[in-house]
Amino acid sequence: MNLDALYSELTLKTKSKLVLIVLDGLGDIATREQNFLTPLEAAATPHLDKLARESAQGRMIPVAPGISPGSGPGHLGLFGYDPLEFQVGRGVIEALGLGVELKPGDVAARANFATLNDSGIVTDRRAGRIPTETCQKLCAMLAAKIKKLGDTDVIIQAGKEHRFVVVFRGRGLEGPLTDADPNREGFPIPAVHPRDEANAGQKKMAALIAEFYAAALPILAREKPANGFLMRGIAHQPHIPLFEKRYQLRPACLAVYPMYKGLAQLVGMKKIEAQTIQEQFERYLREYDNFDFFFIHYKYTDKSGEDGDFVGKMKAIEYFDAALPIFLRKKPDVLVITGDHSTPCAIKGHSWHPQPVLLHSAFCGSDKLDRFTETGANIGSLGIFESKFIIRLMQANARMFDKFGA
Amino acid sequence: MNLDALYSELTLKTKSKLVLIVLDGLGDIATREQNFLTPLEAAATPHLDKLARESAQGRMIPVAPGISPGSGPGHLGLFGYDPLEFQVGRGVIEALGLGVELKPGDVAARANFATLNDSGIVTDRRAGRIPTETCQKLCAMLAAKIKKLGDTDVIIQAGKEHRFVVVFRGRGLEGPLTDADPNREGFPIPAVHPRDEANAGQKKMAALIAEFYAAALPILAREKPANGFLMRGIAHQPHIPLFEKRYQLRPACLAVYPMYKGLAQLVGMKKIEAQTIQEQFERYLREYDNFDFFFIHYKYTDKSGEDGDFVGKMKAIEYFDAALPIFLRKKPDVLVITGDHSTPCAIKGHSWHPQPVLLHSAFCGSDKLDRFTETGANIGSLGIFESKFIIRLMQANARMFDKFGA
Repeated sequence: MNLDALYSELTLKTKSKLVLIVLDGLGDIATREQNFLTPLEAAATPHLDKLARESAQGRMIPVAPGISPGSGPGHLGLFGYDPLEFQVGRGVIEALGLGVELKPGDVAARANFATLNDSGIVTDRRAGRIPTETCQKLCAMLAAKIKKLGDTDVIIQAGKEHRFVVVFRGRGLEGPLTDADPNREGFPIPAVHPRDEANAGQKKMAALIAEFYAAALPILAREKPANGFLMRGIAHQPHIPLFEKRYQLRPACLAVYPMYKGLAQLVGMKKIEAQTIQEQFERYLREYDNFDFFFIHYKYTDKSGEDGDFVGKMKAIEYFDAALPIFLRKKPDVLVITGDHSTPCAIKGHSWHPQPVLLHSAFCGSDKLDRFTETGANIGSLGIFESKFIIRLMQANARMFDKFGA
Repeated sequence: MNLDALYSELTLKTKSKLVLIVLDGLGDIATREQNFLTPLEAAATPHLDKLARESAQGRMIPVAPGISPGSGPGHLGLFGYDPLEFQVGRGVIEALGLGVELKPGDVAARANFATLNDSGIVTDRRAGRIPTETCQKLCAMLAAKIKKLGDTDVIIQAGKEHRFVVVFRGRGLEGPLTDADPNREGFPIPAVHPRDEANAGQKKMAALIAEFYAAALPILAREKPANGFLMRGIAHQPHIPLFEKRYQLRPACLAVYPMYKGLAQLVGMKKIEAQTIQEQFERYLREYDNFDFFFIHYKYTDKSGEDGDFVGKMKAIEYFDAALPIFLRKKPDVLVITGDHSTPCAIKGHSWHPQPVLLHSAFCGSDKLDRFTETGANIGSLGIFESKFIIRLMQANARMFDKFGA
């Protein structure tokens, strides 16, 4: 029997409030250099400590053993969608990250400005990493002249340095396509092809990319060094069952960064704007009655991890902990605090190490742990499990599941 | 999405060195009789202890909960091949154990010398457990007269006591077949049949077995008590994807016993000869640059476990630990020390208890454990997981996987 179907069948609507707080990249590893402590272990976290005493802990495998996820699969897993089943194209993720609001059926591509020689050979795949302002100027030039291709709307959004995204919004478009990128210098830009030659939407999309190149290259012809561009990860927004329907919960997203708002939006969460963790918590308090599920995203743990900044990550955790009392003024029925993956300072990037998770509810039981840490989580009652099940444990703790069988 | 396909897709070639050290049957259970200590806990292991401090630990389920594996499934799991998907026939395992080098397509059978009465009824399935020397003499007699059956080569290799193996090497042969063994005394030797009647290779093979009996029984007719024989586990060497291609690692095997060399050879590892653990470690040092992955097998923990010899197993572990500094002269990027299964002294045989595993690398994190033991491994950050994933965790620690998704 399909497990998601079983969960759906057993789901009861309740009045419970569920909150998922994601400290991005929270998990870390203990190394000799840091006295065998992780940032979470080194941080002073009086409010988390107090919660820990009456919580269950465990560790979560974001995708599969040894796999380091990007933010897309990391968050889809937390939202209860198997990241292997629901894959989001890189173009889509990039577009979401730049704040482009995608609609169902949109096809998005990551693009780089590049340098071509007179014969159309790519001589620099990043156009010398032009400044962001130049990128914005060039994107504005393209956007002014290419608004539509046939009946398809074209949306062009500048990113950092040489990066931008192009979104195609029209009827019957599909991805994925092969890349318009030779992946190394010294070769021309290859034509794109459908990944599945029999797919009509992909064929239409491949023709549109050719049209886009035909329209855009002349506009850039006299630019130096960015007289060309490459396109990759051309794919449509995948069909993802709506969160509200899947879990019988009205969901809201309280995130600061566009990428996470975008991911939440992919599953149909309502965006609530706020700029700081304090504001996010305040907005949660105000919106408490209007939603059943709140996804609250905190970015700064991941940022420090990516920089290899142990003290920074520790302070980001302490800063979060200090703000927590605002949130706790209205304790939800079920609270989960975790990461979307680990971002160990020693690795300076996302990793495969299972992230720690804390679950607090009236029915979670106490693991008799005095703190929320990776080492404590190793021996918690939740064990080590796949991220995609955390939402089911939250629902269970919210008494949202009927008994299975008599 | 198929997980192995995903791992392949994400695999990056690196210059990392990975080493898997298998202390056969390492895992054990703590009992009152032994003061609630396992051999690993009772042993003095200063060098393992030192490693433990900067390692991650966990326990591995060789096949599935409650399943006690033979050496075949035990090792295939460690090599990253699902033992339920990749099943190796007992004839093949037995042949490998006796040092027969199998080629793709070979069909192997386990055989027993047996006693038949004048009507061809089996009166002793083991021919009174004839001495090994008698078995060798009889096998030599058979081998001298039966070298070929049609275009098929026949290889006969004596084992211990009444046991031997027969390997058929020819074109278009396949297993598995039913056994030529009534499984009890008082019945004649049944004719073999294809397991799948529609399979031409199995049909050809069944006919060959009948031919083999017709040729071999007259040769033995005057022998006492071994005037007959039974054949079981008649199967071909399964197709197993090559290790090197699957993991992008050039693999070498440093094992003393034929069985383990044979299993390593099944997945395409290169054999390096050595007779003691010290020699194995020395050869590792010398071959360090020539391979990326070393499988080092140590048998004596299992042997003592099978004998129920607690002190012997403890000493085997201490002996291994004392040799470890030779190995550590060149620490690889990723080191795993574990068993292929547990062989508890109290059970005197292979068991289902998850074996402890220690993983050491620059990125494994410390579990803050001072020793490598079953009890410590229970609370390690690796958790309890299926053996087949250990190779993936090794690859992750070697930074061999690209990030999944953006």
